Amino acid sequence: MFAEIIAVGSEMLTPQRIDTNSLYLTAELNGLGVEVASKCVIGDDRARLAEAISIASERSRIVIISGGLGPTEDDVTRDATAEALGRTQSFRQEVCDAIEERFRRFNRRMAEVNKRQAFIIDGAEILPNDRGTAPGQWIDTGQSVIVLLPGPPHELKAMFERECRPRLERLLPPQVICTRVFRVCGIGESDLDQLIAPAYTKYGNPATTILAAPNDIHVYLRARCSVETEAVALLDELGSQIEALLGDRIYSRNGDPLETEIGTLLRACEATLSVAESCTGGLLASHITAVPGSSDYFLGGYLTYTNRMKTEMLGIDPDLIALHTDVSEAVAKAMAQGARHRSGSTYALSTTGIAGPTGGTEDTPVGTVYIGIAGPGGCAAKRFQYPGDRERVRLMAVQSALDLLRRRLL
Amino acid sequence: MFAEIIAVGSEMLTPQRIDTNSLYLTAELNGLGVEVASKCVIGDDRARLAEAISIASERSRIVIISGGLGPTEDDVTRDATAEALGRTQSFRQEVCDAIEERFRRFNRRMAEVNKRQAFIIDGAEILPNDRGTAPGQWIDTGQSVIVLLPGPPHELKAMFERECRPRLERLLPPQVICTRVFRVCGIGESDLDQLIAPAYTKYGNPATTILAAPNDIHVYLRARCSVETEAVALLDELGSQIEALLGDRIYSRNGDPLETEIGTLLRACEATLSVAESCTGGLLASHITAVPGSSDYFLGGYLTYTNRMKTEMLGIDPDLIALHTDVSEAVAKAMAQGARHRSGSTYALSTTGIAGPTGGTEDTPVGTVYIGIAGPGGCAAKRFQYPGDRERVRLMAVQSALDLLRRRLL
Repeated sequence: MFAEIIAVGSEMLTPQRIDTNSLYLTAELNGLGVEVASKCVIGDDRARLAEAISIASERSRIVIISGGLGPTEDDVTRDATAEALGRTQSFRQEVCDAIEERFRRFNRRMAEVNKRQAFIIDGAEILPNDRGTAPGQWIDTGQSVIVLLPGPPHELKAMFERECRPRLERLLPPQVICTRVFRVCGIGESDLDQLIAPAYTKYGNPATTILAAPNDIHVYLRARCSVETEAVALLDELGSQIEALLGDRIYSRNGDPLETEIGTLLRACEATLSVAESCTGGLLASHITAVPGSSDYFLGGYLTYTNRMKTEMLGIDPDLIALHTDVSEAVAKAMAQGARHRSGSTYALSTTGIAGPTGGTEDTPVGTVYIGIAGPGGCAAKRFQYPGDRERVRLMAVQSALDLLRRRLL
Repeated sequence: MFAEIIAVGSEMLTPQRIDTNSLYLTAELNGLGVEVASKCVIGDDRARLAEAISIASERSRIVIISGGLGPTEDDVTRDATAEALGRTQSFRQEVCDAIEERFRRFNRRMAEVNKRQAFIIDGAEILPNDRGTAPGQWIDTGQSVIVLLPGPPHELKAMFERECRPRLERLLPPQVICTRVFRVCGIGESDLDQLIAPAYTKYGNPATTILAAPNDIHVYLRARCSVETEAVALLDELGSQIEALLGDRIYSRNGDPLETEIGTLLRACEATLSVAESCTGGLLASHITAVPGSSDYFLGGYLTYTNRMKTEMLGIDPDLIALHTDVSEAVAKAMAQGARHRSGSTYALSTTGIAGPTGGTEDTPVGTVYIGIAGPGGCAAKRFQYPGDRERVRLMAVQSALDLLRRRLL
């Protein structure tokens, strides 16, 4: 069972505005077992909108159109829908009276233009609007259901909840959609896909989607069944295969980011954390402290952007830096040890590298980052080589550092 | 001249994800004088995508498709486009070699599946991707131009800028759109609008758009003319009125963020900077160090998340903290002075506050942040009260701190 969502309004075709009603509508439709097959934004253009509605109503069982129900000339949804369905509209005195009454309640007079909002497409059910003047409309052509909803989110949500959800429940076979998400780091997108494709391609249901951010991949599973236990069983079945293939590269099973996961792990063993950052310049700590309550385990950090600061703040021997250069395994280890020692934290992470765009050499090109970790189990450092620009290199280094700590804590 | 944008990816048909590439693309197309007539999101469904491409290419001069160019089974854009246009695809060894070379550069082996990305639609121009493996494609059918771009925003933007903009400029009738952007902080969006609306509402051309981010407002002016001198004269005319109204609240006239501006100012007076952060937990430093070359003036920072760290790292008297609490003007000043003194920097910034969601009291509710500054002109601290969640409070504090320094440096 598929749905399409059409958002109407020229303002959503500018660089400044985006349609967000569709996110709410998608969540609601998924909850009813309906997939959204496509969504689009059309400007205040009657002909183009009529064409879009006509195409959508031929191929999808449910078409939800939001916006364009206002009283002005550029509100074209009523006319475009009538045109697409080849139906006429009639003026309804009772709708007009309700609009007029609403204005009276706010001590205002209804403008003449608002009468436009009292035109209803023949055969449509009227969806009353208790938060605005524009009534919605529900048209069941037998082949498809076309629903017109007002654009303002608070009007749309209230109307959907009260008028549309019960109607859709009557219309649809009982169905649920359950989802699971694995977050993964320390592996590239195509390597991950090669690894798990043999498992997920055997299943049409659950459907699998892979989404990549810098050093952070999301694997989404979505199962659709008539009862919840069935959907959960399917997710367990495919999920356990994916878990077996990815092992400890999976860092989260509930969608939480890495910094939340390490917070949970640190709390569980009553450990504390500090950082010493060079190339990430505060980005690692800013991720750690983005988590509410991180002050329970995060003590603080040393942002040592210069060699002198590395020596003064962390007590690193200048000769060590001179011998190995500041971007080296030795310095990364000394930074982590220095941070742990000086802060008194259980664990410490460090970063030193070349974020770019300049500063690279033949031996340590742009994208080289050493990440150090110090803790009860000893001190270690690892070299990473990242692709991409300054922002991306820094982000990937932050993910790698957090993952290094996660693995140590497991 | 109309364009359509099609974003491909089932994840953007879930309640969690939204297509934002189209905002960038819309801004770019508008800049070239092209209006976006509609945009849509299609899932990883080859037949549906082929149908959408076929409809779009018949009615619009320019069709831009983003995403679905990856190496996996569910990347269907290449096949769907070929189907819609009735064209075949060929394997291109030179494209495959470039992808393989990219993997080698990062010490990785190309997976077999990546060969899929070397298939090019017959008649297409190849758009090289310097930030990822998926090449773009440019197909001019005579009736319309269909452009395939990779989904990751940093890949898409780089490719559009280098490969598409020049091609579109050759394709489109000569028209000049000149823009000017003022970046403003220290004033709310509606106050700013009230202040400058009397000026900009007198002009249809340039068009004015106001876009707000936390403590950072962009005022865009766009003038469209047949010759550049005319457009620039219009921008000067309206721009000078806006500058007079906003004064030193404008921190940038070229689109650069505040951290770039203060970098320029610090360099100009050969000054250096350090930070002492509590509630922003590294976010202030991460903004400062996001600027390439910031190591020229940024020495480092003290992330003192606990009171003990404030005392040990910055030498703050524990009695001072006990007397005033850690979220106070006195402690903010002591932090800035401590950072300046210990690092030897010309200037130092400090933050201490309650980012939330918990930890607020009646006197210092969530959103209270004290920001300190120390420099040759003395030491000062200022109390701010921000609305919003943890992320927003931290971001607004970073902007305020940078702005405090900017005003001191001017």
